[in-house]
Amino acid sequence: MTVDVFFSPSVVDEASVDGRTAVVIDVIRATSSIVEALANGARAIFPTVSTEEAVKLASSLGREDTLLCGERKGLKVEGFDLGNSPAEYSSEVVEGKQLVMSTTNGTRALAAVEGADRVLTCSFMNLSAVAEALDEADALIIVCSGRQNRFALDDALCAGMLVQALAERREVELEFNDAGRVVADLAEKYTVDAEFLRSTAAGKALLGIDLAEDLELCASVDRHPLVPEMKDRRIGLSPGSGGG
Amino acid sequence: MTVDVFFSPSVVDEASVDGRTAVVIDVIRATSSIVEALANGARAIFPTVSTEEAVKLASSLGREDTLLCGERKGLKVEGFDLGNSPAEYSSEVVEGKQLVMSTTNGTRALAAVEGADRVLTCSFMNLSAVAEALDEADALIIVCSGRQNRFALDDALCAGMLVQALAERREVELEFNDAGRVVADLAEKYTVDAEFLRSTAAGKALLGIDLAEDLELCASVDRHPLVPEMKDRRIGLSPGSGGG
Repeated sequence: MTVDVFFSPSVVDEASVDGRTAVVIDVIRATSSIVEALANGARAIFPTVSTEEAVKLASSLGREDTLLCGERKGLKVEGFDLGNSPAEYSSEVVEGKQLVMSTTNGTRALAAVEGADRVLTCSFMNLSAVAEALDEADALIIVCSGRQNRFALDDALCAGMLVQALAERREVELEFNDAGRVVADLAEKYTVDAEFLRSTAAGKALLGIDLAEDLELCASVDRHPLVPEMKDRRIGLSPGSGGG
Repeated sequence: MTVDVFFSPSVVDEASVDGRTAVVIDVIRATSSIVEALANGARAIFPTVSTEEAVKLASSLGREDTLLCGERKGLKVEGFDLGNSPAEYSSEVVEGKQLVMSTTNGTRALAAVEGADRVLTCSFMNLSAVAEALDEADALIIVCSGRQNRFALDDALCAGMLVQALAERREVELEFNDAGRVVADLAEKYTVDAEFLRSTAAGKALLGIDLAEDLELCASVDRHPLVPEMKDRRIGLSPGSGGG
């Protein structure tokens, strides 16, 4: 099994995803919010790169059962229903709804891998379920969403723990690119908790806007045995994924 | 002292370099060849992004004492005098010459940091000299040239060993961005030698084109107590740097 890790969506091209299974990680916070939303009964999530595109899509889907979600500079976009805190995506709010979501980094990463054979999203909150869903994959690309296309340690550690989980499930050796070797090393060195997340650049940015409590949920390893899968720009539960 | 590490020149913007000292690393092989050339008496090196720009600049500098240097896909550019193997830059060849150099990754990284207060180049071959030259710096950016804007482990380890050397020379703690923390971890885990370099993606690419012997020189830590410095797109020996 080949495992190519990328630290930024901006360096992912068509050739990198062609014929591969892609996993997108944005721990703080898009892929954490996505799995929380699906666990709490959201029907689907439609990621968009721009907020304008999000508004248009929400209109065309019908505003009555659609929520507009996302952030810029970490804060809820003006006029949107929800920001990007996993805790906002409670069953009271999202059950039975479809969500249109635009975030700074995560939804860009999803756009970058659209051409892959299969696209899953991963966070600490559903790490083991994603590892299990990859049992049949033989060419994997893991895209860390990063921060403004730069390296983000929280995403890299999540990639490393995913790779570690894959290695434990497989008998064959994994073949890594350079970045894959590094995330595997990180998983040996660090364990995740809210304190670790607070020490990262993305965590510090949340501290600065009074959203640090989000980090508790983002650090909840295996809170949900669910695998979000994107098909035709729509994220729902993967067919093989447990029902919550 | 703040230390911001970047794994790709493509994510370095004006704000990242403004008011900073920048160190560019391209172990395999541009910044290894640059220091080897200066150690062997080259007067100056003019990096250019494109080969066309290199040809034009060499003409305007006067072809009689100018060498055209560089690679594409690792191999010497057709019509150029030298490729990008440090061993080609012997005193017999380069002494008293000026070199115009265009490589795939390293010269792009140099272009990305042009706006910095000061620009130095580093490789394993001159690591300690660069650390010493940074004694007065208080805001540092280290740019790993990477491979086609992607993460390269050889450059990251070199950045980590540079950071380790800085930490040993300083009494104050270094303040890292996320990538800076990771390269410091790498320096604790790995040591450099030709075998390590052969295990990296850039090293494997050289094996594929029969240039693996370059890796011996690229892994020669502190072979030269010299600091290349770029001013106005011209790289010469830093004024404070030993004379070879």
